[in-house]
Amino acid sequence: MIAPAQRPDARRHLLGIGGLSPQEITALLDLSEAEVAVSRQTEKKKSVLKGRTQINLFFEASTRTQSSFELAGKRLGADVMNMSVASSSVKKGETLIDTAMTLNAMQPDILIVRHHSAGAVALLAQKVACSVVNAGDGAHEHPTQALLDALTIRRHKGRIARLIVAICGDVLHSRVARSNILLLNALGAEVRVVAPSTLLPSGIEEMGVRVFRRMDEGLKNADVVMMLRLQRERMEGAFVPSVREYFRYFGLDAAKLAHAKPDALVMHPGPMNRGVEIASEIADGPRSVIEEQVEMGVAVRMAVIETLLARAEGNT
Amino acid sequence: MIAPAQRPDARRHLLGIGGLSPQEITALLDLSEAEVAVSRQTEKKKSVLKGRTQINLFFEASTRTQSSFELAGKRLGADVMNMSVASSSVKKGETLIDTAMTLNAMQPDILIVRHHSAGAVALLAQKVACSVVNAGDGAHEHPTQALLDALTIRRHKGRIARLIVAICGDVLHSRVARSNILLLNALGAEVRVVAPSTLLPSGIEEMGVRVFRRMDEGLKNADVVMMLRLQRERMEGAFVPSVREYFRYFGLDAAKLAHAKPDALVMHPGPMNRGVEIASEIADGPRSVIEEQVEMGVAVRMAVIETLLARAEGNT
Amino acid sequence: MIAPAQRPDARRHLLGIGGLSPQEITALLDLSEAEVAVSRQTEKKKSVLKGRTQINLFFEASTRTQSSFELAGKRLGADVMNMSVASSSVKKGETLIDTAMTLNAMQPDILIVRHHSAGAVALLAQKVACSVVNAGDGAHEHPTQALLDALTIRRHKGRIARLIVAICGDVLHSRVARSNILLLNALGAEVRVVAPSTLLPSGIEEMGVRVFRRMDEGLKNADVVMMLRLQRERMEGAFVPSVREYFRYFGLDAAKLAHAKPDALVMHPGPMNRGVEIASEIADGPRSVIEEQVEMGVAVRMAVIETLLARAEGNT
Repeated sequence: MIAPAQRPDARRHLLGIGGLSPQEITALLDLSEAEVAVSRQTEKKKSVLKGRTQINLFFEASTRTQSSFELAGKRLGADVMNMSVASSSVKKGETLIDTAMTLNAMQPDILIVRHHSAGAVALLAQKVACSVVNAGDGAHEHPTQALLDALTIRRHKGRIARLIVAICGDVLHSRVARSNILLLNALGAEVRVVAPSTLLPSGIEEMGVRVFRRMDEGLKNADVVMMLRLQRERMEGAFVPSVREYFRYFGLDAAKLAHAKPDALVMHPGPMNRGVEIASEIADGPRSVIEEQVEMGVAVRMAVIETLLARAEGNT
Repeated sequence: MIAPAQRPDARRHLLGIGGLSPQEITALLDLSEAEVAVSRQTEKKKSVLKGRTQINLFFEASTRTQSSFELAGKRLGADVMNMSVASSSVKKGETLIDTAMTLNAMQPDILIVRHHSAGAVALLAQKVACSVVNAGDGAHEHPTQALLDALTIRRHKGRIARLIVAICGDVLHSRVARSNILLLNALGAEVRVVAPSTLLPSGIEEMGVRVFRRMDEGLKNADVVMMLRLQRERMEGAFVPSVREYFRYFGLDAAKLAHAKPDALVMHPGPMNRGVEIASEIADGPRSVIEEQVEMGVAVRMAVIETLLARAEGNT
Repeated sequence: MIAPAQRPDARRHLLGIGGLSPQEITALLDLSEAEVAVSRQTEKKKSVLKGRTQINLFFEASTRTQSSFELAGKRLGADVMNMSVASSSVKKGETLIDTAMTLNAMQPDILIVRHHSAGAVALLAQKVACSVVNAGDGAHEHPTQALLDALTIRRHKGRIARLIVAICGDVLHSRVARSNILLLNALGAEVRVVAPSTLLPSGIEEMGVRVFRRMDEGLKNADVVMMLRLQRERMEGAFVPSVREYFRYFGLDAAKLAHAKPDALVMHPGPMNRGVEIASEIADGPRSVIEEQVEMGVAVRMAVIETLLARAEGNT
């Protein structure tokens, strides 16, 4: 991988897909393929990161993402420590930066950070000496989710370029959507977003996507249908008239999926609201790669951690 | 151990004592003896499960059981991950099966599951590719508790067969009682239950136990007195008139214990309510093996995990 | 280190600075220097405690202290288990002693215990066969905090003896203050406490400190200014008239610090209340060694754990 001299931080951290070159993305996906094989072994363990310290610092609870990063670190041989931030120092009034500086002084090699505010992870990264991975910051970015989605697609379709990918649902609040749009565009896909007007950020077209407000039109000829999670707190009130109506117009069922290509992949970042954004028959159906996305998540996170630490230690 | 062809799952999982043959139980107890020695060493560590992933998935909090399984896995050399389920995805509305499938996709070798509903662990086991251990499901089963109780008894009495074991207290809500009744009967003990009518399940006699409603009668000549925990939420109201009366009639004190054999063992699965189901002088007295039960718990769980994974990997 | 025959427990446990000889303190600081180097390596890992079990038993949540002990244990090669005590058995009505005896039966090598009651950790230590480290008990002691403060000072000043150290703020409720007074006096420093009358324990002079009620007088010629955290629950009401007034009279700012020596160190055990007990410009200024304290914390805890286990295993 070639390091642009003007982006040293982009080399040490993974704060977003924005800033990664197509070559860097592809290199991460290629290494991820090797990591998939590690987790499929009986002894799913590398020693490459022995004695390195990984700290998972989650200001928002997330069972699945934190677990995925924890297993990734452990399978690389690192010591992994989870910080239960919500229950402790932050309640005591400590600032984000003081928490970061405290952790930094414990000399971790890598921090995995989730925070409810967009930009908080990048701010924190400026204050520490170690590598930082953004595990989701507000409505901004969730880069490892986009990488695992791309890996899943590439394994089925052999490429990303020129595929039609429809991202459907609550685009407005979704860091998953943002990171996916950036990555898929970088690798040459045709990206569509499909959502009701209330769940579309203004100016989303400027990210290089085509906007649809009807599922039948947005899914037409799609190679990939990527459903987004509708947060519970948005299921009633200003954003959505009712869960039943949301499902009727934007929930993925067989009738709507019929507009996509016959071999279209169905994806969801989880956790799913069955009967809200996706019908159970589709979630569990033959085109669904939702479980495989989870498997690819561990592999992609192994590749990201291994790559960042190799750079930090001057091995690339 | 011989695998009945018709019970493949009983070979891969440990969902309950029901379904285990006396030979399988004895083999687990025999291996547990060797595991006791491991935890008594300065370097209490085997490498047999290096690179294997154990996930503790507790839908009900349980410090002691989760800790026991965590230490068991670590002492076998596995990577152990705790999932704080209560605080995360489940709150987000994810179903049990989706949680299971997500974990499964992370390729654990073994899941240790506690759930508040009887049957939930068996349901989950059907959906995953790895081994599953039931760490307690509702009022159904808690098989490792029964195994550790049997190991403790066997170490003191040399056998289980023909011993008189009195299980006393809240039998109605107790998975510990159910698993113990199944195991002790399988190995040929004479099992009694002693409880007020309100805490006895109807038809309990069909499990092959003699029912007593008075401690003096139920404890007469007993070799083992096994007290059950009275859950706090049952200490007042329909089940028990008052804590004081419960202790008077069903709490184990010196006078009641005098009816048992002079060398009778006193057991309790913990955590104890001192002065409710057991008097402190008895809990801390010379016949109590309550602490030893905890030690045996780690050993039995090591034996269970090691046995299931050896089977899964085709080493038996 | 020489073991006084009459204090066997002081050899197996670290319950407080009280009871440690100056030689023992110095030996711990010397070993800590070597541990600092371990955490600065890429592979920050020793194998000296392979297969040993460390349990962190925190009855009070503390992200930073628990994390520091967790990393210390892991970097020494031990298996470390965190017990989420607040959420489990204790709620179920289990006594402290029963919790201790349960853990003891799981055969840990060392327990790290924080408890909200003074003396609780010493009580617990009497009931277990393993080593115990007091990670803070009520307003009594927090010995590893005092050791890390001493290590930080010694690295900057070359010694502790004859230094003037001003401990400022809520001395009344502070185990940090108590442990520091004991340690600094043992090594020959001149210790001052500076606080409003409402935050001074009666008879504090008997601990061998000079008492000041004004910062300008207390900081005069000080080599070290050690600020204490003001707990949020004490910020209003009987102890402090208002946060603003507290900061005006006792918060460390440039004007007050000017009374200390020009090269005085500024310390804080964290987490800081910026603008309450310390101004941000001072916390982040050139004399602040607050981050270094955190780094020294991991090193000191490694030294304590390694020393206690070497003794327990008869290697010293």
